[in-house]
Amino acid sequence: LNILVEKLYATPVHMQKVEMVERKGLGHPDHITDLACEAVSRELSRYYMKNYGKILHHNVDKGLLIGGSAQWEFGGGKVIEPIEVTVAGRAVKYVELENRAEGIPVDEIAIKAVKEEIRRNFRFLDPDKHMRIYVKIRPGSAELIKTFDKGVEVPLANDTSIGVAYAPLTTSEELALKLEMYLNSSEYKKIRPYVGEDIKVMVLRIGKKFNVTVASAFVDKFFSNVQDYLSVKEEVYNDILDFISRFNLDYDELNLKLNAADDPENMNIYLTVTGTSAEAGDDGNTGRSNRVNGLITPSRQMSLEAVAGKNPVSHVGKLYNVLAYRISKRIHEEVSGVEEVYTKILSTIGHPINEPQLVNIQYISKHKQLSIEDKVKKILEEEFSPDRLRKLTDEILNGQYLLF
Amino acid sequence: LNILVEKLYATPVHMQKVEMVERKGLGHPDHITDLACEAVSRELSRYYMKNYGKILHHNVDKGLLIGGSAQWEFGGGKVIEPIEVTVAGRAVKYVELENRAEGIPVDEIAIKAVKEEIRRNFRFLDPDKHMRIYVKIRPGSAELIKTFDKGVEVPLANDTSIGVAYAPLTTSEELALKLEMYLNSSEYKKIRPYVGEDIKVMVLRIGKKFNVTVASAFVDKFFSNVQDYLSVKEEVYNDILDFISRFNLDYDELNLKLNAADDPENMNIYLTVTGTSAEAGDDGNTGRSNRVNGLITPSRQMSLEAVAGKNPVSHVGKLYNVLAYRISKRIHEEVSGVEEVYTKILSTIGHPINEPQLVNIQYISKHKQLSIEDKVKKILEEEFSPDRLRKLTDEILNGQYLLF
Amino acid sequence: LNILVEKLYATPVHMQKVEMVERKGLGHPDHITDLACEAVSRELSRYYMKNYGKILHHNVDKGLLIGGSAQWEFGGGKVIEPIEVTVAGRAVKYVELENRAEGIPVDEIAIKAVKEEIRRNFRFLDPDKHMRIYVKIRPGSAELIKTFDKGVEVPLANDTSIGVAYAPLTTSEELALKLEMYLNSSEYKKIRPYVGEDIKVMVLRIGKKFNVTVASAFVDKFFSNVQDYLSVKEEVYNDILDFISRFNLDYDELNLKLNAADDPENMNIYLTVTGTSAEAGDDGNTGRSNRVNGLITPSRQMSLEAVAGKNPVSHVGKLYNVLAYRISKRIHEEVSGVEEVYTKILSTIGHPINEPQLVNIQYISKHKQLSIEDKVKKILEEEFSPDRLRKLTDEILNGQYLLF
Amino acid sequence: LNILVEKLYATPVHMQKVEMVERKGLGHPDHITDLACEAVSRELSRYYMKNYGKILHHNVDKGLLIGGSAQWEFGGGKVIEPIEVTVAGRAVKYVELENRAEGIPVDEIAIKAVKEEIRRNFRFLDPDKHMRIYVKIRPGSAELIKTFDKGVEVPLANDTSIGVAYAPLTTSEELALKLEMYLNSSEYKKIRPYVGEDIKVMVLRIGKKFNVTVASAFVDKFFSNVQDYLSVKEEVYNDILDFISRFNLDYDELNLKLNAADDPENMNIYLTVTGTSAEAGDDGNTGRSNRVNGLITPSRQMSLEAVAGKNPVSHVGKLYNVLAYRISKRIHEEVSGVEEVYTKILSTIGHPINEPQLVNIQYISKHKQLSIEDKVKKILEEEFSPDRLRKLTDEILNGQYLLF
Repeated sequence: LNILVEKLYATPVHMQKVEMVERKGLGHPDHITDLACEAVSRELSRYYMKNYGKILHHNVDKGLLIGGSAQWEFGGGKVIEPIEVTVAGRAVKYVELENRAEGIPVDEIAIKAVKEEIRRNFRFLDPDKHMRIYVKIRPGSAELIKTFDKGVEVPLANDTSIGVAYAPLTTSEELALKLEMYLNSSEYKKIRPYVGEDIKVMVLRIGKKFNVTVASAFVDKFFSNVQDYLSVKEEVYNDILDFISRFNLDYDELNLKLNAADDPENMNIYLTVTGTSAEAGDDGNTGRSNRVNGLITPSRQMSLEAVAGKNPVSHVGKLYNVLAYRISKRIHEEVSGVEEVYTKILSTIGHPINEPQLVNIQYISKHKQLSIEDKVKKILEEEFSPDRLRKLTDEILNGQYLLF
Repeated sequence: LNILVEKLYATPVHMQKVEMVERKGLGHPDHITDLACEAVSRELSRYYMKNYGKILHHNVDKGLLIGGSAQWEFGGGKVIEPIEVTVAGRAVKYVELENRAEGIPVDEIAIKAVKEEIRRNFRFLDPDKHMRIYVKIRPGSAELIKTFDKGVEVPLANDTSIGVAYAPLTTSEELALKLEMYLNSSEYKKIRPYVGEDIKVMVLRIGKKFNVTVASAFVDKFFSNVQDYLSVKEEVYNDILDFISRFNLDYDELNLKLNAADDPENMNIYLTVTGTSAEAGDDGNTGRSNRVNGLITPSRQMSLEAVAGKNPVSHVGKLYNVLAYRISKRIHEEVSGVEEVYTKILSTIGHPINEPQLVNIQYISKHKQLSIEDKVKKILEEEFSPDRLRKLTDEILNGQYLLF
Repeated sequence: LNILVEKLYATPVHMQKVEMVERKGLGHPDHITDLACEAVSRELSRYYMKNYGKILHHNVDKGLLIGGSAQWEFGGGKVIEPIEVTVAGRAVKYVELENRAEGIPVDEIAIKAVKEEIRRNFRFLDPDKHMRIYVKIRPGSAELIKTFDKGVEVPLANDTSIGVAYAPLTTSEELALKLEMYLNSSEYKKIRPYVGEDIKVMVLRIGKKFNVTVASAFVDKFFSNVQDYLSVKEEVYNDILDFISRFNLDYDELNLKLNAADDPENMNIYLTVTGTSAEAGDDGNTGRSNRVNGLITPSRQMSLEAVAGKNPVSHVGKLYNVLAYRISKRIHEEVSGVEEVYTKILSTIGHPINEPQLVNIQYISKHKQLSIEDKVKKILEEEFSPDRLRKLTDEILNGQYLLF
Repeated sequence: LNILVEKLYATPVHMQKVEMVERKGLGHPDHITDLACEAVSRELSRYYMKNYGKILHHNVDKGLLIGGSAQWEFGGGKVIEPIEVTVAGRAVKYVELENRAEGIPVDEIAIKAVKEEIRRNFRFLDPDKHMRIYVKIRPGSAELIKTFDKGVEVPLANDTSIGVAYAPLTTSEELALKLEMYLNSSEYKKIRPYVGEDIKVMVLRIGKKFNVTVASAFVDKFFSNVQDYLSVKEEVYNDILDFISRFNLDYDELNLKLNAADDPENMNIYLTVTGTSAEAGDDGNTGRSNRVNGLITPSRQMSLEAVAGKNPVSHVGKLYNVLAYRISKRIHEEVSGVEEVYTKILSTIGHPINEPQLVNIQYISKHKQLSIEDKVKKILEEEFSPDRLRKLTDEILNGQYLLF
């Protein structure tokens, strides 16, 4: 394992004067596109595993969501033109068994995966009524399956790419992430069913002053006039303030804005039929939403790789990002004295995934004299063991990581 | 102007032990998708400007490239299934003039723009023969045009988003950028016409050791057998070494790899019909290629915004990234003592673009005592003046910035 | 009413030496395309009627079915690539009510209509799993709805076109029609569930010799080997012979062929996963299946108009074909001595549908001296009365006519 | 050769009281769709022939044209949304040569074929600017090519289908056909360049009274106001009258209508940007335009087969229709005493095309005692000889038949 551990002399982000953090929530068009691609990869993986004992090659990490057209109305409006979601990429469509070729209903699996993912995550967005799902998955070359051939060897990296992650989150980052998750939790939806899923949180910290900007869709059918909307909005505004106070945020000044672009006099208010702005024109692409820790952090080192839709076996653009996330977290938790740690992993195309070109650990220590190399190496050796890597694949499939 | 200048105590990137830089070149599928979206925005802008005296609202920053299927052959192969490129978004399709509505042939403009962009940039990729261009631009609301109404006021930010950039480039970054540009220059293509446009450069620096990995498509029709390919590859390998030596790179060790995944014995060599891997299955999305300085720099602060396809008048996701790039460059060039500078600009939706929520400058100084605040403020005031912002729009349209 | 009744001196078809008749059954790709277009028109009509008190303008009579790819297998195979069905045309998407515009979810209505139509008619073809439904319905101009404005006036013909029909059916025609309907009846499917819906019947009569050619898909999951298939095929063959004998066909010679293209030794047998050949490549277009009486009769006068998908209020290409069918039938049934009667109705675009350009009745009489003009006129006046025409629209919507 | 010749006792169509004939001209949306499918079949045939010495299997007889949206204007308007044309079907995409598989750029050939066909036939409809061409041709199974294997044997019928034609044309039929051809001739376009290509002619003959209805698009850029249009329309009206007088039509009454639906006061006049109504919403399907003799003749026996797009080697739905046309014409020309002749040819799937199931000739003779059987048989034997059938394929490819 080619490891390079470097002590970084730098102001940790939480001590810098300015921080900007963003979380694109569940119903954001880019996030829906990520959900779609990832659901397809997950269900393909399961189908391959169930039928052939291993996850065959696929990569469906390119997606496009074309916003629809809708007409909200007090009491409940209509989606006039559906949202179009396309998932594109490659997947094995034929396997060669001992004496015959067998086809794999990739399109059917894919469409079903996307629809179920939508149904699982949304209450008012009906994939049959409000969406059209398109699949543009071209066949990869047929794979020859031998029965004994069940994942004994370590997969080869299918690209030269870089995984990046860090730990720990700053308070601003925690806030952005947790606030969106709270507003999109089933508990909260129970008491405030009219809050849509398309929620975006932006936190700007300047010293101890916090500007929290929340844009949240509301669902039209719960409202009968503008007054209704305005009073509910105030309610939600107060919920957010309560949440922040339970969060024990240490601040001098707090500015909260909820749907700042509203102009109620001209009936410009953020109502939707389905809970997402995708119904009325906002488009989306895969890999343009949050990073593997659920956040967009322009002040940080980041990967540009889309994690969603890549296969969790050999596609290092996915594996190494999740792994960097795990490693950063473990180092921060297990190695005392580490204030901030950045992990970058670089693959070499065609080499086993447990033999990266380089694992680069950068850390900011709380003390001058800290040496962490040995402990880090131990963690890395554990994390890069073939067994652990296989487990990582399983964990990704089981939904143990946010991914985006 | 809300400015916050912060001195950062940190090891500048060029002095850190490890650097990873990537440049996705001209013919990379993600890059082609960026080119397509940007060309559409540029030509729409010109049409609007020419016919109505100002750039009307549009945003076509979502794209999808679905790779084709091709069969290379010594002497020249064939594209069997064309590459499909979709450009999606919104644009004004009707304007209300004094006494009538006028339609705008957005699709026609868009298709033409993409085709011409491909023709301008590629020698063997024929947009009519090898590609299908799809346009999914839905109409924005009709704009009411008054003749006197020519851009007097400052546009309003159409989103809350963040522009991020830095200066200067490290040597590794310069190398990645310049090497790709050299290999894709018309001069180089003249002497080595068989080098395709799909070139990806990855630079890994560990101390003074450089691992330079180049993946470059070659064009099949120039070759008659594998030997041919291997000897030409050696030629190009030496060209790159020459380039690096002219570059005056200060290194202890240099490892150059060109098309490392080649396996000539099994005829796995990187030949293409058109010069890009998009012909045979590699897919692309907008905004997943290089940042505004032409690079992917995981060790750096980065924006996740796609610049390509956004309108250059009010879409701060584009404007503020280019502006942050200009500002960083100017500060580094004009303010002595600045070793590294990071600029972040945050907009507020609906506010004039010359009134950002915050401009955050972070710099690493060469000397302990450096104070740069006054000089920075002067630069910022110049850069944020309405005239200068208008000029920025023009410069973007005239191709003065890399963008991606 | 401009009527021209003409006695025709001609050998009636049943007395000619040769007759060729074809019936494309329920699951034929052209027929599925017709079903899809018609279902969309019907459900749009119902929606318009329910919400606005009248059927607004629409015409969705252009469709395309692109066959999928499937792999049948003994015990049950798979659909690898889904069948794609596109319904195209125009429909009113916005209505102007007293004080506001209201949108109509045309796409949603259309997709749902097609899926339900498929579910109603097929047992093993699942529109969610095996099909993709695309809708390309562009908006017609917004209609201004006044509440009192409920269909008082007679609609205007929206085209210059011709309706054509005849009566009675010959024995060969009856046979082709009834045989397919029997094989696709729910009673028959109960005892022979393995018989698919894609059934084509061709009857060639030469004098009293009948060549009956039936092509019928079978459903793979009911079979475990070729022997199975062959013995079931024999069973069905005998069922058809029984049906023909119950039919009291007066023949000298009867040649029945069932799936004549089978080549069991090379495993070329007509098995399908879903019951239709559309699963594996056979494509379809609207209006290329049976005429309004359910048959393709090359020996007869025919209309080339597609009936499926046209609106049943003003689209004479639909109305006049059904009407010609009714009129022919009534004349044959109510006017004694008529051996064969042909009705052709020609519209004038923009004229009320109860004022056709010409109604042309041609009849072959059993007796020399027959004059039927008065009786025919009476029938025509009844059939062209505004009330009766309105009823015709209702009957079409209620499924009282075969249409194709 | 299984032949059945039958003397028919019937009033020939030209002596019946009423005749209705229609000709959908060059620029009619259904006709454009036919042109597109046929162009693809023709160019595929040429490619196969040139590269592999024989025409490989294909069938692209399903098409869909979705009308665009356009805004005509005096002096020249714009196409806002392009016309979409899809050509669907199957074609061999891979051939197995001695030692390797070779791909065939079917999509590229198809797109090019359609564009060139449009350019050849239209002056103001630009396939690059005003149209999008989509190809949905799925691969047929790979064909194994042996060099010596050049069409020695007779092809096998790929379907059970019926070809139908008759001779001669009546005067009304001649008029409908020739009038459209005249108005779309290059000579006429030279003197009246403003007459578009979308021309539909309907002839209704009642005894010796002729109602001729012509709908013809005009091209907007030649006109500067409504008066202009009206005076040009009068000019064209007179041209048609002149044409009819040169045609020596024997009539008692002649009613000519040109663009009867015009309502100049409300600016409803038949102006177009491109010369076809497809630019603004009229849709099209393959096989719904004219029959093989260029006409739609509801009073006649007709085939429902689409001829356009079928391969001219083994697809009897095309071959037998053209052949029936040739045979009818020859019988009428070469066998004296034949007043009207109908030819129907029925294939058997899988049987050589020179061995049809039945050739049925029906004729109406001028004299009581006429026997034509021997002469007809001689003609049929010539026409069904393998050499003559091969020549028929060539003639179809060379454009010797109208086809639609």
